Amino acid sequence: MGFVDLLPQEAEAEARGIAKVMAVFGRHGYERVRPPLLEFESSLLSGAGEALSEQSFRMLDPSSHRMMALRPDMTTQIARIAEVRLKDLPRPLRLSYSGDCVVIGTPGREGERQIAQAGIELIGPDSAQADAEVIALGAEALQAMGIEHISFDLSMPVLVWTLIDESFAGTVRDNLIHALDRRDAAAVAEQGGELADLFLGMMNAAGPAERALELLDTLTFPERLKGHVARLKETVRAVLRRVPEVHVTVDPIDFRGWRYHTGVCMTVFALHCREELGRGGRYRAGAEDACGLTLHPQALLRVAPPLSKTLRCMVPAGLSKKDLSSLHEAGYATVAALDDEADLKESARHLRCSHIWQDGVAVAL
Amino acid sequence: MGFVDLLPQEAEAEARGIAKVMAVFGRHGYERVRPPLLEFESSLLSGAGEALSEQSFRMLDPSSHRMMALRPDMTTQIARIAEVRLKDLPRPLRLSYSGDCVVIGTPGREGERQIAQAGIELIGPDSAQADAEVIALGAEALQAMGIEHISFDLSMPVLVWTLIDESFAGTVRDNLIHALDRRDAAAVAEQGGELADLFLGMMNAAGPAERALELLDTLTFPERLKGHVARLKETVRAVLRRVPEVHVTVDPIDFRGWRYHTGVCMTVFALHCREELGRGGRYRAGAEDACGLTLHPQALLRVAPPLSKTLRCMVPAGLSKKDLSSLHEAGYATVAALDDEADLKESARHLRCSHIWQDGVAVAL
Repeated sequence: MGFVDLLPQEAEAEARGIAKVMAVFGRHGYERVRPPLLEFESSLLSGAGEALSEQSFRMLDPSSHRMMALRPDMTTQIARIAEVRLKDLPRPLRLSYSGDCVVIGTPGREGERQIAQAGIELIGPDSAQADAEVIALGAEALQAMGIEHISFDLSMPVLVWTLIDESFAGTVRDNLIHALDRRDAAAVAEQGGELADLFLGMMNAAGPAERALELLDTLTFPERLKGHVARLKETVRAVLRRVPEVHVTVDPIDFRGWRYHTGVCMTVFALHCREELGRGGRYRAGAEDACGLTLHPQALLRVAPPLSKTLRCMVPAGLSKKDLSSLHEAGYATVAALDDEADLKESARHLRCSHIWQDGVAVAL
Repeated sequence: MGFVDLLPQEAEAEARGIAKVMAVFGRHGYERVRPPLLEFESSLLSGAGEALSEQSFRMLDPSSHRMMALRPDMTTQIARIAEVRLKDLPRPLRLSYSGDCVVIGTPGREGERQIAQAGIELIGPDSAQADAEVIALGAEALQAMGIEHISFDLSMPVLVWTLIDESFAGTVRDNLIHALDRRDAAAVAEQGGELADLFLGMMNAAGPAERALELLDTLTFPERLKGHVARLKETVRAVLRRVPEVHVTVDPIDFRGWRYHTGVCMTVFALHCREELGRGGRYRAGAEDACGLTLHPQALLRVAPPLSKTLRCMVPAGLSKKDLSSLHEAGYATVAALDDEADLKESARHLRCSHIWQDGVAVAL
């Protein structure tokens, strides 16, 4: 049914992972906000949130007799907080958040319906430096969790959407979208009309950042897209400067994802298994420019090194606070006998302890 | 509507408070579990959960066409995890949890409908030492948040309920419950029949623990309650031994709260403002004995000392990772200029920074 229990190891790993990620955001000046799990439908699913409407659980509030929705995503909530509650704080406004979201999922594929999110939003500036800061902090957060080999894939969905929306309609439009989605060069050539060469050139440019930048330079974009293309390049260059150790790819043809994005979009993957670790991009938060990145803690945990095992020391009932504190400071969790008469060694084995308190010190079992 | 945003100060304080409390539980061997926000109604609101049914938001799952409920409380979820998922782990089983719950609330008084919880369950043993461990860890968790002046109020609702259920019916029963609830001695004397003296004696015994223990010794309980009374006394003595610095009161007449409790119950208050900080007690987790305590992080934050202000240091664009790390290690959050040309001092003031990076060090503004 997609709503699962996390048991001790997993639950602890999730909590620590989120704490590490949030600590990275916090030390770079991103301040935490915590929007509610539920909001009135009219508030949560309006504007940019409309795109998420189909994925939202709804329920009647018996108190107000209005419909409420469980959040399927937090970005639109953070945008609302910035626009309404924090409108008087100076910009750039740097906010961070973590929490659970709930999506309806696809019938038959409800594997994960409660989704943890941890992310940042940089609200106000519209610049390549701002994009690069968001990506650099994402990389640092992943490194803090011990995830080293990552790839940021940058795209600019507004390029493809603008070309499609302005020049295609009806069946041709649908066919073209389908062809682009499958990256079917022959079909794109057939359906793309005058823009076929451009589409194919963009498709061909997809790949490692340096190469993509070179190939983009050889393409001729319509005048009205030149600003977007220049900005994509500028952001890529800023990212390469800031996090030279991170693998960066560019995919100018990518147009999937949520349609509220208005500029550069990014997806971050673990290189060795192509697991998607997070995504984000540039959008409008009310009347403001914003760029955000959301990491998926559950995915992070699948690729992060496992937690080192907690040292557990069995201690007798009534051990002094001083002795307990010294064990805690040394990194032990203590497990106290409840019965004065307990055979400590036997209890320790029974209760999965690694150590036992003996003659004033922790002794390995 | 009772679903509120937490803004930067509050959100950070809540997250840090929960982390502190959970760290105390963890270092005493309580392992974290994380049940889901939603469950099928049939699972969440059955058994002990039935008592919470009225307070639960329900919604249709479009995927399974079954009704789901948002959890109004986590204790019953933890009991389910212990009984089903962790049935093979040895007992005593020590579990901790934190998360948000959602209640419908009272019409017109929906002030807090999303309620954070952080708590522990000690599953398996049924002993005064187990009760005392739960209370002692609650006290330590509060101390870790800087909350010093607290009172644990202990009760044994099964005493009053047994007396009422066995000897009263109809209007007299209702009147008696009402009288006991208001602590109206005259009405209790009038409605209490043969048990009036016992009820009045129990009412009179309510107060500081030492005095309550003495007065309880002077009362004659029916044979079948003597075990419960002895256990209440034993638990009180165990608590006084373990946390002598904590104020403890006993209220033998208290019978409010959730009816799933089968033994000693506790409520913890901040002494100077009588704010309820948490509650718990002994109950049956499936076929097992269990004792739990749930703290309310939102209430804790109202009485805890405020967070010390974060030091924020404005730094130029492109400051080296080494310099950034040294600032972070010294406890600063850094706020980076996005523009190379920025007037750092002006930006620092504008962005609420306390310090500015100048000649290789953080200088107070």
